[in-house]
Amino acid sequence: MHQPSASSAPAIETMLAHRSIRRFKPDPIPDEDIRRAIEAGQMASTSSNVQAYSIIRITDPAIRSGIAELAGPQPKVVECGAFFVVCADVRRHMLLTRQSGEEYDAKLEAFLVAVIDASLFAQNACVAFESMGYGICYIGGLRNDLNRVDELLQLPRGVYPLYGLCVGIPGEDPMPRPRVDIDGVLFENGYPSDDEVMRHIGSYDEVYEQYMLERSGKQATWSAMMASKYTKASRVDVGPYYRAKGADVS
Amino acid sequence: MHQPSASSAPAIETMLAHRSIRRFKPDPIPDEDIRRAIEAGQMASTSSNVQAYSIIRITDPAIRSGIAELAGPQPKVVECGAFFVVCADVRRHMLLTRQSGEEYDAKLEAFLVAVIDASLFAQNACVAFESMGYGICYIGGLRNDLNRVDELLQLPRGVYPLYGLCVGIPGEDPMPRPRVDIDGVLFENGYPSDDEVMRHIGSYDEVYEQYMLERSGKQATWSAMMASKYTKASRVDVGPYYRAKGADVS
Repeated sequence: MHQPSASSAPAIETMLAHRSIRRFKPDPIPDEDIRRAIEAGQMASTSSNVQAYSIIRITDPAIRSGIAELAGPQPKVVECGAFFVVCADVRRHMLLTRQSGEEYDAKLEAFLVAVIDASLFAQNACVAFESMGYGICYIGGLRNDLNRVDELLQLPRGVYPLYGLCVGIPGEDPMPRPRVDIDGVLFENGYPSDDEVMRHIGSYDEVYEQYMLERSGKQATWSAMMASKYTKASRVDVGPYYRAKGADVS
Repeated sequence: MHQPSASSAPAIETMLAHRSIRRFKPDPIPDEDIRRAIEAGQMASTSSNVQAYSIIRITDPAIRSGIAELAGPQPKVVECGAFFVVCADVRRHMLLTRQSGEEYDAKLEAFLVAVIDASLFAQNACVAFESMGYGICYIGGLRNDLNRVDELLQLPRGVYPLYGLCVGIPGEDPMPRPRVDIDGVLFENGYPSDDEVMRHIGSYDEVYEQYMLERSGKQATWSAMMASKYTKASRVDVGPYYRAKGADVS
C-alpha cells in the first residue's frame, strides 16, 4: 500500500490520451496481448461478484462481414486486428438457478447489473489495450440489428450482446475529442439548476464547434446534434430483442 | 503512436491488483486528485459523444449518513475520503430537445447508452484513483432505496442514480478476489454449450471455495451463491423509480 501520488500515474496519461481509432493497420494482435487485456478486464469491480458478462472474439470472416454490414457499414469491424462482441450475460445464473430446481427470477435490477458489470469489464480491457499501444473503438452500431447479430452468433437465452469492440494498431492519429468541462459533470450534494446546466452546455458548444471545424470542416454545435438526436427514439428493437432473450426490464 | 508492448503497461498492473476496499483511513482526498481522476473518467469512450452521465460528490454529512444507512448500513460511505453518486444522465438531452421545441423521445436504447456511458466513465475514474494509490468500492446498495436517495439529493427528471463510489486511502489490504477463468468468459465466434459453461463454473467453484475459506473461514461455492441470489427478484423498485424519473425502458 503506497501513499497516493498523482505523479506516478501513467494509467492516467493513457486515459487522457484516448481517442477512438477508426482506421487500423491489418496486423493481427498476439493472443497473449488479448488474454492479458481480458484478464485485466475481469479484475474490474463486479456487483456481488456475479461477473455477469462474456466477450466473444470474432475470427470468422463471414461473421465479421455480417456485423460490419449491419453496424453501418463500418469497414473497421473487418479491418481491425481483433474484433469482439461484449455481452451482458446472466446465462450462468440462469443455468445455476435451474440446476437448483428453481426459476430464474429477476427484473430491471439484474439486467442493469449485467450491463454495468460488462461495461466496467470492457473499459478495463480497453485501457489495458491502449496501455499496450493499441487503439480501440466501441461499436454501438451492433445494436442497429440485434436480431441479425443473433442469427450470426446463435446466442442462447440470457446472453445480451451490448456493443462491438475493435482493437488494433492505429492506422491514424486523430486528436482527442474535447469533453464537457468537468464542472458540467461533477456536482456537489445535488444537481445544478437548468440555467447552470445550460451555461455549461453553452461553453461546450464553443469548444466543440471549434473541434468539429478543425477535424472535419463541418459547422456543428453539440446542442444541435443532441436536440436532433433525441426527437425520435432510435433502435426501438433493442428492448423487444433483450426481452425475447429473457430480460425482464420491468 | 508506438508499437504495442505489453512490458510497458503499468496500467495493467494497477488493474490486475484491484480489490475493493471496504475500510478506509479518514484522510480527505485533495481536490486536484479528484479532478484529475474525473477528467480521466470523462475521456472514456461515449456513445456518439452523448456524454450521458454526471457524478455528484457528497460532502454534506447528513446526506452521507442517509446514504450509508439505506445502502446497508455501510459505514464506509461515511468513513471514506470522498464519496460520490454516479448517475446515468439524459437531463442535458431533455433540456436541449425541449429548447428546440420538440419532445424528448427515447426507449431502452437511450437508457442503456446512459448506463454504459456512466459505467465506462466511472471505471476510468476508478482506475485513475487506484493508479494514484487510492482504494475504491462501488456501492450498488445505493439501489436499495432510490426513492430515499432522491429525497436526499432532490434529483430532477432524466438523472438516474446508478451506484455510489467510495474513494480513499486504504485502511486494509485484502487479497484480490479470483475471477472465473478467462476461458469461461472469452469465447470465439459463438457461445459455448451449457456443458462447457458448467465445466468452467465447476472449476471456479473450487478456486472460489478456497478463497472464501482463506478470507472469511466460510464454506461457500459460487454456484450456490448465484443459485440462491436469483430465485427471487431483488430491488424490484429500481424499474419503477427510473420510469418515474423519465426513463422509457420499453
